[in-house]
Amino acid sequence: VDRLTIKDVARAAGVHPATASRALNPRLPGRISAETTERVTRAAAALGYVVDPVGRSLRTQRSGTIGVLVPDLLNPFYPPVLRGVEGVLRENGFEALIASTDNDVRREAGLLDVFRGRRCEGYLVASASRRDETVRSLVRDGVPVVLVNRLTDVDAPSVTSDDAQGIGAAVAHLRGLGHTAIAHLTGPADISVTGRREKAFRAALAPGRPIVARAAQYTAAAGEAACLTLLRKRPEVTAILAGNDLIAVGCYAAFGRLGLSCPRDVSLIGINDMPLAEWLRPALTTVAIPQQLMGAQAARLIVATINNPQAAVRSIALDTALIVRGSTGPVRPATRSSA
Amino acid sequence: VDRLTIKDVARAAGVHPATASRALNPRLPGRISAETTERVTRAAAALGYVVDPVGRSLRTQRSGTIGVLVPDLLNPFYPPVLRGVEGVLRENGFEALIASTDNDVRREAGLLDVFRGRRCEGYLVASASRRDETVRSLVRDGVPVVLVNRLTDVDAPSVTSDDAQGIGAAVAHLRGLGHTAIAHLTGPADISVTGRREKAFRAALAPGRPIVARAAQYTAAAGEAACLTLLRKRPEVTAILAGNDLIAVGCYAAFGRLGLSCPRDVSLIGINDMPLAEWLRPALTTVAIPQQLMGAQAARLIVATINNPQAAVRSIALDTALIVRGSTGPVRPATRSSA
Repeated sequence: VDRLTIKDVARAAGVHPATASRALNPRLPGRISAETTERVTRAAAALGYVVDPVGRSLRTQRSGTIGVLVPDLLNPFYPPVLRGVEGVLRENGFEALIASTDNDVRREAGLLDVFRGRRCEGYLVASASRRDETVRSLVRDGVPVVLVNRLTDVDAPSVTSDDAQGIGAAVAHLRGLGHTAIAHLTGPADISVTGRREKAFRAALAPGRPIVARAAQYTAAAGEAACLTLLRKRPEVTAILAGNDLIAVGCYAAFGRLGLSCPRDVSLIGINDMPLAEWLRPALTTVAIPQQLMGAQAARLIVATINNPQAAVRSIALDTALIVRGSTGPVRPATRSSA
Repeated sequence: VDRLTIKDVARAAGVHPATASRALNPRLPGRISAETTERVTRAAAALGYVVDPVGRSLRTQRSGTIGVLVPDLLNPFYPPVLRGVEGVLRENGFEALIASTDNDVRREAGLLDVFRGRRCEGYLVASASRRDETVRSLVRDGVPVVLVNRLTDVDAPSVTSDDAQGIGAAVAHLRGLGHTAIAHLTGPADISVTGRREKAFRAALAPGRPIVARAAQYTAAAGEAACLTLLRKRPEVTAILAGNDLIAVGCYAAFGRLGLSCPRDVSLIGINDMPLAEWLRPALTTVAIPQQLMGAQAARLIVATINNPQAAVRSIALDTALIVRGSTGPVRPATRSSA
């Protein structure tokens, strides 16, 4: 049999081929009534017609792909973000090309070359450092780009989280439990979220005296090492706000090595609410970021930018919320000071 | 400036354009000497020439994409598999289109339609059920496909793990610690790995009496529920081999609810060695499957199949190994029986 074309669908639906084409492709300009769209969609389904994105890409010069750069797919924060991205992009006729940069600027630049060679129509960048040449070159060249979670020194639309909200709630929760010696165990300074969270922590604690320590990376291993150093140096600390859930996972390990029980001796709060956070023991109290929504909103922004380059796209800061689980409890200062 | 073409590169390198083209594209037929390849690559780099996969795709009718179907990106087993896939595909001029099927056959079929519409040149299927119409249709149509981790009733090249090896070591380890009442808490029967692991467990335990219970899904929540039922019904059990690490995570939660301490009262072994397994408390003893290698080998197989459809591609079963951590210890039968 011959390959079905849009003309066959148009004939079956009793409309002009251009109308049928628009009805089946939300990205083509021109409005079609819901009734016509429905009729064309039914005709296409009845005939078994499948839209041919490669053929479309030849006619429209559009690849239908979005390049997505994440620091590392193994960080449990990103899979839910990517699921949000995947769903919205596919609904809109796009597919994602995904790459892990390992927070390596040369690797990021190389990946961008690969994706530009494939004529990605836009980029979602979750791997930005504070000064990011890759993002800078995209913005300079007028390529649609949306920053996800992390910002950089170049202005571009973004989807981030309102961490101040959740961090304020976290500090209030710890104070309500009687904690006063509260430390923030944050991540590397060259990533924007680090500064954003530290600022929110200091503001929430004021006029109290903030204790801030830094893990070399947003990983459990770096979190464990930094937590050991912190607790040995500052034995008065009775509660820790970790820079993210992975650093919190490292804190649990450090507590174990120091013979401290959580939350009896030390309370712990993470940030993200990664998929396994509720399954840790004790279950992790954490500032939840809506990860899947972050991906979905970022995908909506990039699709909107591509479909209407003139439109003013507004950046979004998503709400965060404290989820109280088992890792926070009342202060017992005597226990910690004597440890 | 005009767009650079392969002719500019050929002129700079002093070779014929067809030679330059082959030197820059490992997928085109014809052998080029290492020296010529080096010269062309340098000329391309000096000029800033980037291979244009879209233009190439028009000339060669190749999309340069591979469809990758996983059950759920949120299962921590798959991100390392995908990192392995990503690296090898990119080295060979391919990119992955990734989708989560949620173990839903209708969703899987719909995703396949999307990917076929984009003319994916081959498929890596990690989501196969025992009878999988999606895989069947790919194999029937002669489309290159490699199964990852899970098999189905249609014959296709695959990359799996030799679970019998690691499960044998796990049972021997538990026996060495004095355990005799060992249960296997496995997953749903419609997934091939379930049967493979149960068979290996029964063989390793023979002539001992196997205890086998089933979680409804390979998730922590299903693992917790199934573990509660198992331990209430069979209080003599002192050790559990979970069907995967997520089920093991659920077992930790069940132990907590029953007031049991691991490994003092119950020993626990997982399967996979997912990224956070070593960070659980106690750290999880597990049968490690080389996840990144599994992805890399599957990518190598699909590239080999596409580049040489006549070649006989051999399926691979990767070695597994027991990693002993803190969740297994000597039996204390009196404690458990009286619990």
